[in-house]
Amino acid sequence: MSEKLIGACIIGQSGGPTSVINASAYGVIRTALDNDSITKVYGAAHGIKGVLDDVLYDMGAEDADELALLMQTPSSALGSCRYKLKDSDVDDTDYKRILEIFKKYDVRYFFYNGGNDSMDTCNKISKYMQKVGYDCRIMGVPKTIDNDLWGTDHCPGYASAAKYIATSCMEVYLDARVYDTGMVCVLEIMGRHAGWLTAASALAAHAGQGPDLIYLPETDFDVDAFIADVKRVYAQSGKCLVAVSEGIHDKTGKLIAEYGADNAPVDAFGHKQLGGLAATLVNMLKAKMDVKVRGIEFSLLQRCAAHCASETDVKESFLAGKTAVEAAVAGVTDKMVGYERSYDSDGKYVCNIKMMDLADVANTEKKIPREWINEAGNGLNDRFIEYALPLIQGEREMVRENGLPRFVKLKKVRAK
Amino acid sequence: MSEKLIGACIIGQSGGPTSVINASAYGVIRTALDNDSITKVYGAAHGIKGVLDDVLYDMGAEDADELALLMQTPSSALGSCRYKLKDSDVDDTDYKRILEIFKKYDVRYFFYNGGNDSMDTCNKISKYMQKVGYDCRIMGVPKTIDNDLWGTDHCPGYASAAKYIATSCMEVYLDARVYDTGMVCVLEIMGRHAGWLTAASALAAHAGQGPDLIYLPETDFDVDAFIADVKRVYAQSGKCLVAVSEGIHDKTGKLIAEYGADNAPVDAFGHKQLGGLAATLVNMLKAKMDVKVRGIEFSLLQRCAAHCASETDVKESFLAGKTAVEAAVAGVTDKMVGYERSYDSDGKYVCNIKMMDLADVANTEKKIPREWINEAGNGLNDRFIEYALPLIQGEREMVRENGLPRFVKLKKVRAK
Repeated sequence: MSEKLIGACIIGQSGGPTSVINASAYGVIRTALDNDSITKVYGAAHGIKGVLDDVLYDMGAEDADELALLMQTPSSALGSCRYKLKDSDVDDTDYKRILEIFKKYDVRYFFYNGGNDSMDTCNKISKYMQKVGYDCRIMGVPKTIDNDLWGTDHCPGYASAAKYIATSCMEVYLDARVYDTGMVCVLEIMGRHAGWLTAASALAAHAGQGPDLIYLPETDFDVDAFIADVKRVYAQSGKCLVAVSEGIHDKTGKLIAEYGADNAPVDAFGHKQLGGLAATLVNMLKAKMDVKVRGIEFSLLQRCAAHCASETDVKESFLAGKTAVEAAVAGVTDKMVGYERSYDSDGKYVCNIKMMDLADVANTEKKIPREWINEAGNGLNDRFIEYALPLIQGEREMVRENGLPRFVKLKKVRAK
Repeated sequence: MSEKLIGACIIGQSGGPTSVINASAYGVIRTALDNDSITKVYGAAHGIKGVLDDVLYDMGAEDADELALLMQTPSSALGSCRYKLKDSDVDDTDYKRILEIFKKYDVRYFFYNGGNDSMDTCNKISKYMQKVGYDCRIMGVPKTIDNDLWGTDHCPGYASAAKYIATSCMEVYLDARVYDTGMVCVLEIMGRHAGWLTAASALAAHAGQGPDLIYLPETDFDVDAFIADVKRVYAQSGKCLVAVSEGIHDKTGKLIAEYGADNAPVDAFGHKQLGGLAATLVNMLKAKMDVKVRGIEFSLLQRCAAHCASETDVKESFLAGKTAVEAAVAGVTDKMVGYERSYDSDGKYVCNIKMMDLADVANTEKKIPREWINEAGNGLNDRFIEYALPLIQGEREMVRENGLPRFVKLKKVRAK
């Protein structure tokens, strides 16, 4: 048992939005507000930037019922950022500032709610605080629709995006088949390096109403093989529904999206800002086939469609935040909360919480195992279906107003 | 009371899909199957084309529980078409064929489930059958997400699309505001001539989480005024969310989508196949503003998102189909089922069914009254909100399988 550590906590959110990141934040905030060791609960505006800029919100000043709406509100209610900390050996300006703010508010607990890059931030802060001997406990609470965090069975946020994608694929499947005329439809789904989101379209195919062909960044994409695949499916049924991951690339590593536009801009992390892949493929198909071809980008909708969230995901996301606080108060630090899957005696899926070293998680990507993808590289097999199905179970009951979701409206009272 | 007419019925679906057109079809099919005057219930494959091609399905051969899933299945389960009948005075080939099929199957009831163009088809068949003295009753059952049918308060299918659009706008609003960096986002929503669907985004704004600017085809779009609007909103908040209807046009009538691409193809009805409006506007804004600008097309999703349907819409759509059969059996013919709104003594919205002459409905479009749009032509006022809010109330309980909607899978047994 660790020494009891009394002090304030900060919760920050970082990286791209998900449908359930706020459920994790609520897990942290509610649990922290109710915990005796935690004197104050601060929300950092736009993640670590809010710490650096000294813009913290007093979460205790929020109305409790309103705060509970975090459970159903997509995107990051506290604001997010994409800010990369330099190595403290190279430049420790930011770290000194963070320490200053921690001291100013007597912060002894820091919870960072984000993906790959956010765990890197979390890890760097944790190691710096250890180095300078400032007593605080630092925990990562994962989120990413990309599902690419290493070492955890899956990531909060993925299942809800997967459920939305699979549902929408089923609906588009029915829509695209409504006329007795030919139709090829290309669905562009998010995922730069890992195909987890696009693979979710296989759940629709498993239900008998989904894509005929699915292409992921885990395998090399060959344009000629793709055209041949589409022509073959189309010849059989007069329709072809294709799901593609934005990050598909040829065997040289060149992105297929760049075949259409070679000058995609990059973000602060050096990631290519992709787009236009569907249009690129549609143009390729139109040049080779005399048929109506349509491209659809799921775009931002897939990462913020809270109205179609997985109840399993919502509950697990809350639990991740809650457990992070409980563990930190009990003495755990420098860890990310992860999930481990087991099956009970009835064969029912169980999600167990485990603690993982931040250093192990940061900047490592998890991809879909090659053996879950068919040999031709244009579909998923049952191993993926078995993996993904338990995650998308259940629908979230939503508080509504006037027939629309009631999303949280925080007062955001500045801490002094 | 009319003479009792005994015979078979045909139900056909035509035009673009909606989330609830099958609820209307189920209203027809279930009621017809249960009615003594109707000897057989046939579903026409791909609307009137199925009649012309003699491809009819025996709906009585379907499993009753499976058939009931029509209530939650989007798109047209029987298949749809966009087929324009010639005037019978010019060329009566199709009409003779239809009469031949009606006689072959002893069809005495014809229900046609569609939008504007479908009511034209329905009207022409009705007038032809009257002219040749074939005793049958012909009823239009409306559907259109466009909500542009004349004389009815609203159209089955509109409310569900509106609910999806409003919900998605709220979610995108939250997503687009997540970073503390500038963001302009343009949402492209369906609607060639009438702005009803795009106006639904005002419901999100009414909830405090929606577009700042909304442009409809009911007013002329001025590019300079648009850029000035966006710059003004952006200067205030660093964000700007814009909703635009695909059919917005300048004062000469030229489509703004054509500013980007002047050669859009046309469909069988002479309607321009639009697309790329969002991209056109994004490029305009990027040329004038140094800020991240994103375009999102709701595309097919808005017309087939059954998972986000309005319960009010589903119930009314079923009722429209059911009433069409009951009225026809009672002697009504040559009518379209329409809706009339009233409010009960508690001020609660009530939807009443009325019968409208097919000839009056066919090919007439209903637009948003100018006085529901603000003077600047970049937003809706409360009159629209009062109109639309009752329509989007309630959520449909869905039969699910493996966490996904269970959509109907018909046997489609060919009639002989």
